[in-house]
Amino acid sequence: MEHIFHSIKLSKDSKNPLYTQLYEKIKEMIVHGVLAAGTRLPSVRQLAGSLGINQITVVSAYRMLENNKYAFSKPGSGTYVAKMLPLIRPRTPENESMLTDELYHQDDISLIHNGQIKINKDTVNFASATPNPDLFPVEDFKQALNEVLDRDKGNAFGYQESQGFYPLRESIAKILHQSKIPCSADMLQIISGAQQGIDIISKAFLNQGDYVIVESPTYTGAIAVFKSRGAQIIDIELETDGPNLKILEYNLNKYRPRLIYTIPTFQNPTGYSYSNFKRQELLRLAEKYNAYIIEDDYVSDLDFELKGFIPIKALDKNHRVIFIKSFSKIFMPGLRLGFMIVPSELLGNILEAKHTTDISTSGLIQRTFDLYIRNGFWDKHYRFMYQIYKERYLAIVKQLDENLPDSIQFMHPGGGLNIWLDLPYGFSISELVKQCAAHNIVFAPGKIFYCSSSSQKLNHIRLSFAAVYTEQIHEGLQKLAEIISGILNKQNQYRNMPVL
Amino acid sequence: MEHIFHSIKLSKDSKNPLYTQLYEKIKEMIVHGVLAAGTRLPSVRQLAGSLGINQITVVSAYRMLENNKYAFSKPGSGTYVAKMLPLIRPRTPENESMLTDELYHQDDISLIHNGQIKINKDTVNFASATPNPDLFPVEDFKQALNEVLDRDKGNAFGYQESQGFYPLRESIAKILHQSKIPCSADMLQIISGAQQGIDIISKAFLNQGDYVIVESPTYTGAIAVFKSRGAQIIDIELETDGPNLKILEYNLNKYRPRLIYTIPTFQNPTGYSYSNFKRQELLRLAEKYNAYIIEDDYVSDLDFELKGFIPIKALDKNHRVIFIKSFSKIFMPGLRLGFMIVPSELLGNILEAKHTTDISTSGLIQRTFDLYIRNGFWDKHYRFMYQIYKERYLAIVKQLDENLPDSIQFMHPGGGLNIWLDLPYGFSISELVKQCAAHNIVFAPGKIFYCSSSSQKLNHIRLSFAAVYTEQIHEGLQKLAEIISGILNKQNQYRNMPVL
Repeated sequence: MEHIFHSIKLSKDSKNPLYTQLYEKIKEMIVHGVLAAGTRLPSVRQLAGSLGINQITVVSAYRMLENNKYAFSKPGSGTYVAKMLPLIRPRTPENESMLTDELYHQDDISLIHNGQIKINKDTVNFASATPNPDLFPVEDFKQALNEVLDRDKGNAFGYQESQGFYPLRESIAKILHQSKIPCSADMLQIISGAQQGIDIISKAFLNQGDYVIVESPTYTGAIAVFKSRGAQIIDIELETDGPNLKILEYNLNKYRPRLIYTIPTFQNPTGYSYSNFKRQELLRLAEKYNAYIIEDDYVSDLDFELKGFIPIKALDKNHRVIFIKSFSKIFMPGLRLGFMIVPSELLGNILEAKHTTDISTSGLIQRTFDLYIRNGFWDKHYRFMYQIYKERYLAIVKQLDENLPDSIQFMHPGGGLNIWLDLPYGFSISELVKQCAAHNIVFAPGKIFYCSSSSQKLNHIRLSFAAVYTEQIHEGLQKLAEIISGILNKQNQYRNMPVL
Repeated sequence: MEHIFHSIKLSKDSKNPLYTQLYEKIKEMIVHGVLAAGTRLPSVRQLAGSLGINQITVVSAYRMLENNKYAFSKPGSGTYVAKMLPLIRPRTPENESMLTDELYHQDDISLIHNGQIKINKDTVNFASATPNPDLFPVEDFKQALNEVLDRDKGNAFGYQESQGFYPLRESIAKILHQSKIPCSADMLQIISGAQQGIDIISKAFLNQGDYVIVESPTYTGAIAVFKSRGAQIIDIELETDGPNLKILEYNLNKYRPRLIYTIPTFQNPTGYSYSNFKRQELLRLAEKYNAYIIEDDYVSDLDFELKGFIPIKALDKNHRVIFIKSFSKIFMPGLRLGFMIVPSELLGNILEAKHTTDISTSGLIQRTFDLYIRNGFWDKHYRFMYQIYKERYLAIVKQLDENLPDSIQFMHPGGGLNIWLDLPYGFSISELVKQCAAHNIVFAPGKIFYCSSSSQKLNHIRLSFAAVYTEQIHEGLQKLAEIISGILNKQNQYRNMPVL
């Protein structure tokens, strides 16, 4: 038994610390059955002695084995190989935090703050970026649904073309023409929501170790997908008018990423939009460095101040942009429906990935949504939602302007569903969460939107107004501003910390 | 310019041929921008001379560059770096065949035989494993749908729990109890069809280079997913009662695969089922070698001869089996609905992968199907489909027994939706396809169900009876048998080939 461990070779020149090297070697022996389940590992002293390494190194390696469920310890007896081996991807602390981040994306409030905060009908909900169910056009949709069932009968339930139901693609192409994006049904791929779009693109074009550029902060549902493909993520700080172009080009040149993931208009979580100059430049750089852009059109159609940003896809003469749009934010998230505009040379790969992923998006939903558009319901519903969201947007911006202490920064995004508050460095967000919860007010802390702890900033919060009622905004934000001021004053007083 | 090419080093000792090495080196230079778009590559003679290699090697490398769209040639002028670089995963011949295989799975006949064979309402369709749309329970479903809309209103369209709508999971758990699988709602994960289930498991547990064991032949939609994760596939020949256990264990021991993908009952495409002994053994071996089993329950409920095979999941005391079931074959494929039973220690990883993939399956569809089950519609529809399929099964087996030449082998599967005909070695399947098409009869050639050309057998066809009408079976199979006999006689006569 002992001699197996003697054979372990560690390298002091490696960039991996000795304890992770030792962990990997022992893990390998366990996974490959060299060390049977239940085997007692050598004592720390023994192993350190025989390998000529520090005991701390062995202790650290054993602890990693335990944390990852390859081993367990019996107090007073020693460390043993686990009886039941963990499946494959042990949940590392990194995985753990990823899961938490992701769940935020569901915008299911019960999951935010780890379930410690309960939501009820009186909650002032600045956390959810999903519309309230009472705004969904249930009756119109029901009418379209029944019409489709009477018209198509069983055909509504057969397999659909993987690219999507053709008439729906035609209907969408028509809508896109109105928003300056020239497009035909052949260039469209129907998807089961934007999340699936990102997943499919990754499956088609990313291999392990490939680089991807993302904004920081960003939608972490995208980061989760890229990580799941084994991609390396380069996060570039988002300024109020888009990324710093020098930093962007430096990274494009150095890492030659395959994809650049961006939400250029009314971004989630910041609400920032790229200037038209930066849109052009991003496109130019993508061409120069042979990268493709994923343009995630989150809610560009909620342009309350008529900024008129041009979709990057509308500028895309050389077919560098894959455009994704979901109907979740304006229509109904539970339908799981969206589309992508795909450059023709990429369509084959995308179609293959879609087919592998789920064969096709529900035909019944596609047919119903097509009829919903053709019957004019979509246009009507969009105008309805635009008005409601605009009213909330104006109310929230007004209240913040009037009530926030002067030291708090925020940019008027001009549209979208989110406002990004920039609190002073050192401000205790967790204290803010706690005090707000006591007044039944919830929001998302900014730190969850970063892809790594090293780039994470801790002094932001995201206020979303998709699920908050206009009549709650006034009182809710007054209270929020009051709590912020209270915390600021207290911190000032006790810590003698200058407020910027 | 020239000096760049001088720096290329090729190794004669490498297991990669020189021309692929050369291809890789030049491709790298192109991808990394060392060679700009439009640059003329050295002539074949020049490059061969300067590297001291055969001209054929250079020609082959250049051809690979062209095939993969990194370069193009101008006749009489030379080879040039492509103006627009291909995205990332160039479509290699291997990818190409994969795509074709996959499309078969859609069972969309217009895609089978590359669109050369047209389907009309008189086609005798032995190719599709998907039920005819006229069998779908549209009226009952519509009733449930409207009931859900009236009951849940907007809530039917919000985001759903990623694990699935809880009442639906309860309803499914109840159904499973009837089929001997003890199960609770907490162990179930709702998925958008079986294909998505395989995709999610792969995302959760496979990394590049991991090994997966599959049956040969098998459902190639699964293979496409495993390949997309960069997994290495070990295909093990399927015998009429399951795989050869010695070969299985040899491979488990040698490659330590993470997953074993199996359709143990009425397999697609063969119709074969594992003996109960082999089910037990598979489970024992998975435990011994620390692998997990994906049990794809394709159509075990279509047990026409009451074979009573026990699902492997029902034997799974040590939580080694992930059980997948779709409702596509008996219910309606276009709904994209299915479920998995997941061992509790794997649930976290699976849930994370589901969330990354599409956040959740359509809430409206889940709620409707739940009510459909609770209203007793599911049970009624299952019994209806069982009778129809059974009638077809009995008719097809009887006709084949009576009409096929004695030299043709086939096993009565006892259930399912497919029959696997074993034609003599050397029999021309393409001739059979052609002659049958002339009589408006279609089926799937067996070769599409293999994961590599090396393991591919060419002498099988799959006859499916999900979409063929009972009244077509008699005449269709008489004609098929006649055509087979004709080809056999002709081959006998001209080639003097013994018929087995």
